[in-house]
Amino acid sequence: MREVEEIRMEHGAGGEAMRELLREIMQYFADSENVPGDDGDVLLSNCVCEEVPLDALDDSAVFNGIVFTTDSHTVKPLFFPGGDIGSLSIAGTVNDIAVMGASPVCMSAAFVIEEGFPMSDFVRVLGSMRDTAHMASVKIVTGDTKVVEKGAVDRIIINTSAIGFRTEALEHNFDVVRDYRGRADIRWLTDSNLKDGDAIIVSGYIGDHGIALLSHREGINFDSELKSDIAPLNKLVQEILKVGGIVAMKDPTRGGLANALNEFSEKSGVGIEIEEERIPIRESVRSACEMLGIDPLEIGNEGKIVMGVVSEIAEDVLRALRHDELGKNAEIIGYASEELRGVVMKTEVGGRRTVEPPIGDPVPRIC
Amino acid sequence: MREVEEIRMEHGAGGEAMRELLREIMQYFADSENVPGDDGDVLLSNCVCEEVPLDALDDSAVFNGIVFTTDSHTVKPLFFPGGDIGSLSIAGTVNDIAVMGASPVCMSAAFVIEEGFPMSDFVRVLGSMRDTAHMASVKIVTGDTKVVEKGAVDRIIINTSAIGFRTEALEHNFDVVRDYRGRADIRWLTDSNLKDGDAIIVSGYIGDHGIALLSHREGINFDSELKSDIAPLNKLVQEILKVGGIVAMKDPTRGGLANALNEFSEKSGVGIEIEEERIPIRESVRSACEMLGIDPLEIGNEGKIVMGVVSEIAEDVLRALRHDELGKNAEIIGYASEELRGVVMKTEVGGRRTVEPPIGDPVPRIC
Repeated sequence: MREVEEIRMEHGAGGEAMRELLREIMQYFADSENVPGDDGDVLLSNCVCEEVPLDALDDSAVFNGIVFTTDSHTVKPLFFPGGDIGSLSIAGTVNDIAVMGASPVCMSAAFVIEEGFPMSDFVRVLGSMRDTAHMASVKIVTGDTKVVEKGAVDRIIINTSAIGFRTEALEHNFDVVRDYRGRADIRWLTDSNLKDGDAIIVSGYIGDHGIALLSHREGINFDSELKSDIAPLNKLVQEILKVGGIVAMKDPTRGGLANALNEFSEKSGVGIEIEEERIPIRESVRSACEMLGIDPLEIGNEGKIVMGVVSEIAEDVLRALRHDELGKNAEIIGYASEELRGVVMKTEVGGRRTVEPPIGDPVPRIC
Repeated sequence: MREVEEIRMEHGAGGEAMRELLREIMQYFADSENVPGDDGDVLLSNCVCEEVPLDALDDSAVFNGIVFTTDSHTVKPLFFPGGDIGSLSIAGTVNDIAVMGASPVCMSAAFVIEEGFPMSDFVRVLGSMRDTAHMASVKIVTGDTKVVEKGAVDRIIINTSAIGFRTEALEHNFDVVRDYRGRADIRWLTDSNLKDGDAIIVSGYIGDHGIALLSHREGINFDSELKSDIAPLNKLVQEILKVGGIVAMKDPTRGGLANALNEFSEKSGVGIEIEEERIPIRESVRSACEMLGIDPLEIGNEGKIVMGVVSEIAEDVLRALRHDELGKNAEIIGYASEELRGVVMKTEVGGRRTVEPPIGDPVPRIC
């Protein structure tokens, strides 16, 4: 990493270059000698233990039973069909807690605002944040506001962090997993839990967020109906956990489905085979991707989840997903397989191709 | 607020304009109808209760016994005598937890980086963050990295959020408070706890951070020895809590001592009288302020705390502070008084003047 002289756009693109940068960051922060909380006898019912550490590079960390995550939002433009930086900043962070199987409870909101930013736009963003927090039943409990001179930031950046907890539905989910598989050791929906035979489910159409944003930004009108899919998914996740049998979950944001599946595969040490014709993609998104030469699997999504499910119960989970408006277009797109390495896709024309983790970001500044 | 058409620098200055903006933000977020965690039966040993809510506008929120805070850091320049954006981003957020009386345990770190930012500078910032986290015994457990195109952010912004917990020293501290005053109801070192007669202590020289940064930025050399006072104060706070009798605490960052004392006064509903000659200020800072026409009370500090202490035990707390390198220049600067309104200062020439909360920020972009 040290031989790279400067930060490049790829370092934030959700693919290989970004993972390299994150490994560099972790060398500094994943310090096992540092004993937290030794400034006093912290009154805790449980130990100071990391269940899901930083170097797991999962959607959230789990520490002392507290699920904790953070995200800075730099989307451009700030307002777009289906959402804005306000709804994005709440839903994106809520979903990082949700895909661990936890319930988000409270959040922070930190604003860095450019001098001269219109108050009407700020109020509109606040309203979106309030509405999305309300939908997700989370509470914004703390915040920070910095104003910087013109040119020091592109209008507004919003960071949100969130705290969540285990739920009874998550406990039930793992009871079901144990009934079928006897995997007694997993406690959270982490990326490393996939085993041979698990079904891979995606909760709906992929590519909507990226293409909606891109076409709005560039003034290309592929489909006037196309909107971002931003939505808080925590309630949907808790519903399907009541069915049970889910072992791993991610929201395929930066790097898209290609990155999410490769992370599953790499961290779990199993291959994944998916079928192109089963992947739900809108016709307008597909043709936009063809026109622009973009792989729809590499486009960032917002209100979507991809998960690994014990195969015997996958149809039940699918039914529960489709029962909800936010999961009505869900599909089983493939299976984990010990006989493969990496992610392989059976194409519609009958061939097979490897789905690589993306290098750069086909649509930057969308989250 | 709505009649203000755009965000101005004063809205981030830590004074009156900022409080007005925060009141606007709170109208959106302090939503009592929102019941957090209703997406599932959250497994909690304690209730979903806010002990220190958003609209207390305190240094941190307290929710379900978890102390939670966030801060975005936009300091300019990134490197300066005594610190850099890395040490600042850890110490600043650690201190917001510390001044509630809690022990910070884990943190998040979210980077927004401008394309082309030198890797060597990034690595230097990471090293400072690691060292400061080590000093504070906190662990960085989760993070986020966004890269934006040139011009979309001034080099790098770092947001950190932190989680902390109650300590035995804090329990002991309030036992001592009760022994003297019988104030049974206070559980955290919030701004609203001051009562008539409480001593006001500041932990050391004020103005160092702001003047060190300003002189470095502007190339004015007031004192080649002057450095920022950035330091994590959580261990010092826990030491003095073992003495006990402390009721309220703040770190006088944006808006300086003038803002911190006015917040104490307003939220506690008591006046505060301070003596100018007791306020510890370095000679070089004092003359720099005179030269620049800046009120030293309005300058942001980093490694300093101001607190209210039961008067009978104030000398013991002062001794404990001075025993520590970070508190060796501590002074009792005044007392809370029911007979006054707001903050009044006996000047060195024998007069009295009101210390108003600052309107603008005399030294912007220092945190």
